Amino acid sequence: MVVAQQMNKPEYVERTKNYLEYLIKNDWTLSGAVTDTKGDRSKTPAGQAHPDYYLHVVDRNKDGIVVKGCKMHITAAPCCNDIIVLPTRNMQENEADYAVSFATPSNAKGIKFICRPSRGERSPNEYPSSLPIRDLNEAMIVFDNVFVPWERVFMCGEWAYAILLAYTFATFHRFTAVCYHIPIVENLAGCAVAMAEMNGISNEEHVKDKLVNIASYVETIKALAQAATLSPVRYGEIAVPSPLITNMAKLHYARSYHEVIKMVQDISGGIISTLPTYRDWENPETRPYMEHYLGGNPKYTTEERLKMVAHTHRWVASAESAHQEMITVHAEGSMETQKMMIMVEAPFKDYRDLALLAAGVEIKD
Amino acid sequence: MVVAQQMNKPEYVERTKNYLEYLIKNDWTLSGAVTDTKGDRSKTPAGQAHPDYYLHVVDRNKDGIVVKGCKMHITAAPCCNDIIVLPTRNMQENEADYAVSFATPSNAKGIKFICRPSRGERSPNEYPSSLPIRDLNEAMIVFDNVFVPWERVFMCGEWAYAILLAYTFATFHRFTAVCYHIPIVENLAGCAVAMAEMNGISNEEHVKDKLVNIASYVETIKALAQAATLSPVRYGEIAVPSPLITNMAKLHYARSYHEVIKMVQDISGGIISTLPTYRDWENPETRPYMEHYLGGNPKYTTEERLKMVAHTHRWVASAESAHQEMITVHAEGSMETQKMMIMVEAPFKDYRDLALLAAGVEIKD
Amino acid sequence: MVVAQQMNKPEYVERTKNYLEYLIKNDWTLSGAVTDTKGDRSKTPAGQAHPDYYLHVVDRNKDGIVVKGCKMHITAAPCCNDIIVLPTRNMQENEADYAVSFATPSNAKGIKFICRPSRGERSPNEYPSSLPIRDLNEAMIVFDNVFVPWERVFMCGEWAYAILLAYTFATFHRFTAVCYHIPIVENLAGCAVAMAEMNGISNEEHVKDKLVNIASYVETIKALAQAATLSPVRYGEIAVPSPLITNMAKLHYARSYHEVIKMVQDISGGIISTLPTYRDWENPETRPYMEHYLGGNPKYTTEERLKMVAHTHRWVASAESAHQEMITVHAEGSMETQKMMIMVEAPFKDYRDLALLAAGVEIKD
Amino acid sequence: MVVAQQMNKPEYVERTKNYLEYLIKNDWTLSGAVTDTKGDRSKTPAGQAHPDYYLHVVDRNKDGIVVKGCKMHITAAPCCNDIIVLPTRNMQENEADYAVSFATPSNAKGIKFICRPSRGERSPNEYPSSLPIRDLNEAMIVFDNVFVPWERVFMCGEWAYAILLAYTFATFHRFTAVCYHIPIVENLAGCAVAMAEMNGISNEEHVKDKLVNIASYVETIKALAQAATLSPVRYGEIAVPSPLITNMAKLHYARSYHEVIKMVQDISGGIISTLPTYRDWENPETRPYMEHYLGGNPKYTTEERLKMVAHTHRWVASAESAHQEMITVHAEGSMETQKMMIMVEAPFKDYRDLALLAAGVEIKD
Repeated sequence: MVVAQQMNKPEYVERTKNYLEYLIKNDWTLSGAVTDTKGDRSKTPAGQAHPDYYLHVVDRNKDGIVVKGCKMHITAAPCCNDIIVLPTRNMQENEADYAVSFATPSNAKGIKFICRPSRGERSPNEYPSSLPIRDLNEAMIVFDNVFVPWERVFMCGEWAYAILLAYTFATFHRFTAVCYHIPIVENLAGCAVAMAEMNGISNEEHVKDKLVNIASYVETIKALAQAATLSPVRYGEIAVPSPLITNMAKLHYARSYHEVIKMVQDISGGIISTLPTYRDWENPETRPYMEHYLGGNPKYTTEERLKMVAHTHRWVASAESAHQEMITVHAEGSMETQKMMIMVEAPFKDYRDLALLAAGVEIKD
Repeated sequence: MVVAQQMNKPEYVERTKNYLEYLIKNDWTLSGAVTDTKGDRSKTPAGQAHPDYYLHVVDRNKDGIVVKGCKMHITAAPCCNDIIVLPTRNMQENEADYAVSFATPSNAKGIKFICRPSRGERSPNEYPSSLPIRDLNEAMIVFDNVFVPWERVFMCGEWAYAILLAYTFATFHRFTAVCYHIPIVENLAGCAVAMAEMNGISNEEHVKDKLVNIASYVETIKALAQAATLSPVRYGEIAVPSPLITNMAKLHYARSYHEVIKMVQDISGGIISTLPTYRDWENPETRPYMEHYLGGNPKYTTEERLKMVAHTHRWVASAESAHQEMITVHAEGSMETQKMMIMVEAPFKDYRDLALLAAGVEIKD
Repeated sequence: MVVAQQMNKPEYVERTKNYLEYLIKNDWTLSGAVTDTKGDRSKTPAGQAHPDYYLHVVDRNKDGIVVKGCKMHITAAPCCNDIIVLPTRNMQENEADYAVSFATPSNAKGIKFICRPSRGERSPNEYPSSLPIRDLNEAMIVFDNVFVPWERVFMCGEWAYAILLAYTFATFHRFTAVCYHIPIVENLAGCAVAMAEMNGISNEEHVKDKLVNIASYVETIKALAQAATLSPVRYGEIAVPSPLITNMAKLHYARSYHEVIKMVQDISGGIISTLPTYRDWENPETRPYMEHYLGGNPKYTTEERLKMVAHTHRWVASAESAHQEMITVHAEGSMETQKMMIMVEAPFKDYRDLALLAAGVEIKD
Repeated sequence: MVVAQQMNKPEYVERTKNYLEYLIKNDWTLSGAVTDTKGDRSKTPAGQAHPDYYLHVVDRNKDGIVVKGCKMHITAAPCCNDIIVLPTRNMQENEADYAVSFATPSNAKGIKFICRPSRGERSPNEYPSSLPIRDLNEAMIVFDNVFVPWERVFMCGEWAYAILLAYTFATFHRFTAVCYHIPIVENLAGCAVAMAEMNGISNEEHVKDKLVNIASYVETIKALAQAATLSPVRYGEIAVPSPLITNMAKLHYARSYHEVIKMVQDISGGIISTLPTYRDWENPETRPYMEHYLGGNPKYTTEERLKMVAHTHRWVASAESAHQEMITVHAEGSMETQKMMIMVEAPFKDYRDLALLAAGVEIKD
C-alpha cells in the first residue's frame, strides 16, 4: 500500500485496500513469495539462459494476467491460504514484464509446491523433547502459467518501482526477523548458563568471559530492536521501525551468531555430540553405567543433565542447528543486503559535514 | 547520596544533601578522584609494600579526619574548585581506613597537583586548526596529610559499602563516557567519508564495506545510549540509565575503536602520516609543487584536501589520537570492568530458566 | 616411552619398548583413551561425589592391577585391537591411584563399549554421494573392574608425572589434528569456489574478499603445520614437531572454523538448506521443474549444480557439519587447552628481556 | 632483471646487469620510488585533471628521456645515493608514457625532495631513551623534468609489463616488510609481559589470555616468514620466498596489529598516557612523591617501572606509535593489495577441483 501510493496509481491503492480488508475479514494467513530462483547471478532477468529464472508476465487480457516462474525458500507456504508475490530486485526498462506483484490463492490452477520436510532428527536414538517439536517446512513454488485477475494485481510493468517494493518489504520483514530471533538467542544463552552450571565450570574465568560476550550479544539485539521502534520513520501514513537500526540489528544478529554457537559448544563440552543414544538410556543393561558416569554438578540428577545435553545438542550441534545457521545467514536477506540498506540509510553526509566543518573546509553539496 | 541512603546513616544523607546545595549555590565544578596508584595489583590495599598506595585515613579527631594517599589520572583536576574522593575498589574488614569518601577544596593544605600537559603537537610544522584546540590535562593528586572536616566526610570506615560507592559512581560515569564519545566517533566517520570522497574512492566496494562498518559502529553506540535511557532502573529516588545497556555500550565503543581507527587510516591513505609540513606549505618554493601534486577529487582544492588530511591526521595518526586510544581503553574503567558489571547485571538466571524449562528440567533456585 | 624415560624407572621403559614391538609385530591398531567423564569439573578427582569419575586403580596384586572408571569420546574405539589408557590431567599426592596408564585388549573382561552411530543423514531424501560415506563412531568405554597385568602397566601411582604424560600425548595428538583437517578445509574452500562459480558470483567483490579470507585460513594452517615440522624439539631421542607452532596451528584452525563455515554458507546460497529432496529429483512429475528452475551458470548442468549443492550441504549445513563444528571445538583438546600450552611454550621471557633491555632496565631473572 | 628477461628485450637485461654491477662496485644505497601522488583515484593516469599525477615521459631523444611527476612516501630517500623508479600500477595502451622505469642519482638536476621530520616527541618532558633514537624520514620526491640517459632506463613504453614490474617489486618488498617487523612486535610483546609483571597482574586470567594472543600473533608472523622462505618459487634464475605465504604473513601482521596495540595498552594501564613528565621526575620537590606513589611490583624500583612505562608509551601511545599504525596499514602496500595478490596466488582451482571430484561433478577446465 505504501508503494502503491507512491506509484500514484489510484487503482493499485484501491486494490491493496480491498485486499487488506478481504484478508482481515477472512482472517487468512499469507505467505510472501519474493526470492526468484535467479539462475546465473551475473546476468540480469532478461539476460538469462531462459526467461523464467525470474517470475514474469507471459500474457495479459481484459480479465487479468498470466504469470510464469518459480519462487524459492518460501517458509510455511503450503499452510497458507494465499500467496503474495513481489519482485526480488531492481528491474531495467526492458524487464517490465518482471516488475509484477499480485496475490493468489495457494491452490490456484498451475501452482505447484515442491516442499521439503524439516531437517530435525526424529529417530528413536534421540532424546524426547519436553515441548512439542514444531518446525517450518520450506517450499519451492512453481507458477506454471497461473492466471491472476486484475483486482489482485498490485504492480504490473512499473519496473522503476520494483526495487522500492522489494526494499519496503525487506524493511518490515527484517524487523520481524530481529524480533523472532530474540527468544532463540535467549535460549542459546540459557543453554550456555545451564551447561556451565551442570558441568561445574561457572566460575572459570574463560567461561565467565564467554557468558558476558553471549549476554552482550543477546541484549544488544534486544536494545537495538527497542531503539528501532523508538526511532520510527514515516512511510506515508504508516510508522515503520527505523530501517537503519533494524538493519544494524539484523546484521549484528547474523554476523556474530556462529561465534555464539561456538561459545555454547565450547562451554557445553564434547558430550553434546557424543552422548550415547536414548536407546542406551532406556536399555537396563547400559543405563546404570550412564547414570553412574554421566553426572555433573550434584545439584542436578544425571537424567536432568542428559536432558539438558540433548536439548543443547538440538540447538547447537544438530541438523536443526546447522539449518538455523543457514537461516541466520540467508533468511530475510543476507548480510550483504543489510549492508546495502545501511549504506543507503546511514547519515554519511552528516558525518562528512561535521568533519569538513571541523577541518575548516567549505561544504559544497 | 544514593549510597548514603543505603548505609542507613542519617548524618551521611544530611551531609551529601548539604554539600549538593552548596555546590549548586556556588555553581562550582568538581573533579571526581577515584583511581588510586595501587602499587602491586596482586596485593590488597593492606598488603602493599607501604600503606599509602591506596588513600586512607591516618588520623581522626572531633573536627574531622586526616587523609594520606594519591589519586591518579584525574582529568582537568587543577581547573576545578573542589575534589570529591571515592574509594576505587571493594575493601575487607581490615581495610576500614581505606573505605573513605569526602570532598575538599582543591587548594586545601597538603594537596599537590603533579600535572602533565596535553600531548598534542603544536609546532609550526603542524597545520593550524580551524577550531580552537582544547585539550584536557591529567593530574596526579597527592594528599599529603590533608585535613577534612566531618561535614565533608561521606564515608569513613564502612568498608562493606566501598564497592557499592565505586560501582554507583561507575554507572553514572560510564554513561557520560558513552555520550561524550558520540561526536568523537561521528567526526571519525566524517573523516573517513570526506577522505574517501577527496581521494576519489567512494565507490570502491571495500571502501563502502568499511564505511558501512564504521556507520554501524557509530549508530550502535547512539542506539544503545538511547536504549539505556529508555530502560532506566531506580536507585532510591533517582532514575539511572540501565547499567546493563550502558556497560554494553561502553564495551562496544571501547572494543571496536581501534578497528575503526584502522579503517579510517586505511581509507585516508599514507598521506595522513607523510604530508609535508605546514612550513613547506607556506614556503613559496615548495608550495607550488604541493599545490600541483597533492590534489585529489577536483571538486575540492588542494588546500581543502590538505586541511582535511591534517584534520584526519590529528584524529587518527597523531600523539593526540594515540592518547585517545588510551582513553578509550582505560578512561571510565577498562573493558574488564565493563565485563564485570555485565556479569552482575545481565539476566543470566532468566536465560537459564528458559532453557531448563524448554529442556524439561525442574528449576531449583 | 618419552615419559617413561623421564620417570627414571627402567621397568616402564622396558615395558613400553616391549609393547611397541608387540604392536609392530602384530600390526595392531590402537585407540588412545584419555578423557574421563569428570563429573563436577569444579572438583578434583578425589573430591567428586563418587570415586569413579576419573579412572583409577581399585586393587593391585603380584600379577597386575584392577581398574575402574570410564573414558569418553573415544573415536573408533570398537574397531581397534587394543586400548591405551592415559590420565587426562594433573594429579595431587592424594590422587596417586588416578595416576595410571596401561594397555589392554579391547575385549578384556569388564570392558563395555556404549557406542553411538555417526550423525549423518542417510534417508532416501538425501542425494547419493559420489564417494563412499565413511564416518567415525564415538564410544564411551566403561572399565568395570578390569584386570591389567604388570607388563602392560606404564604408570601406576607416579602422580607427579600424570600431567607430563597428558601433555606429551597432547603434543603428538594435536599435530595429527592439524594435519588431518587440512583436506577438510581444502574441501570447504573448494565448495565455496565451486558454488560461487555455479551461482555466477565469482566476480562480486564481497565474494572475492571471502574467498581470499578462506584461502588465507587454509594456507595458514598448511604453512604452520610445515613450520612446526621444520622447528622440531627433542623429547629424549624423538624429534617432535614444535609444540608451540602446533598449538598455534590448532588454535588458528579451531578459532576461525565457524567463521569459514559462515562464509561458505553465505556464498553458497539458501538452496543449500532448502533444496528439494532427492525423491523429488527422481520423481518424473517434479524433476522437470527442478531441472528448469534450479540451474545456474550454464557451464554446468542443473544436475551438476544440485550435486554440488548436496555435497556442500553435507559439509556446511547438515548434522554431520554440526558434528564437525563440535569436533573442531573439542577434539584433540579445546581452545583453552591450546592456550595453556602456548602459555607454557611461548618465549615470554625472551620478549620481556628484549623490552627491558630497550627500556634500560636491568634483567633480574 | 626478472621482468627485463620476460619483456624479451636484451638491452634491458644488459642495462639492469650493468646497473647492478655498478651498485655493487660502489656499494651504494638505493631508494625505491614507486607510489605516485595519484590525484583522483577514480581516474586512470591518462584521465586526471593534469597529466602529472603519475610520473611520465615528457620527452625523449637519442641520449635519453625526460620525466615529470612526483613520488610519495619515499622513506629515507634523501640519504640514498640513487633512486630507482618503478610504475605503481597497471597501464593501458594509451598510457605508454607512464610505463617507465629508470635509475637516477638522487642529486640529478630537477629532483626536489620535500621531506618531513620524524614524528617522535623529543621535548624535555620525555624520558630519555636508553638506546639511540633513530627514526626514518619520509620524502615527497618531485621530478621536475629530469633527464635520464638510456643506459639507466629499464622500461619505457612497454605498458603491458608495468603491472608485472609493480607486482614483482611488491613480492620482494613485502617479504622485507614481514621480516623487519618481527623485532618490533617482539618488543611490543615484551612491553606487555614486563608491564604485567611490574603491575603485578601476570596471573590474572584475562592478562594471560591476552599474552597468549599476543604471542600467537608474533609467532605466527615468524612461522609464516620461515614457511615462505622454505616454499620458494622461481622467477627466472632467482628463488623468491613464496608470494602467497609472504602476502598472508603481511596481511596477518597488518590486520591484527591494532588489536595487539589495544591489548598492550590495556595491560600497561592508564599511566602509559598520564605519567608525569620527566621534568617532574628531575624536580626534587615532586620526585619524592613520584618515587613513593608510582611503584608497582617491589621486584623493580619505581625508576625502573617508570623507564618501562616511558618505553611502552613510546611504542603504544605516542606520535611515533600512531605513525607506526599508519606504516602497518600502508607501507609495502595496503591490506587490499595483499588480498589482490592472495587472490592471484592462492590455489583456488585446486580447491575447486577437489570439491568437484568429491561431489561427483566433471571438471571442465
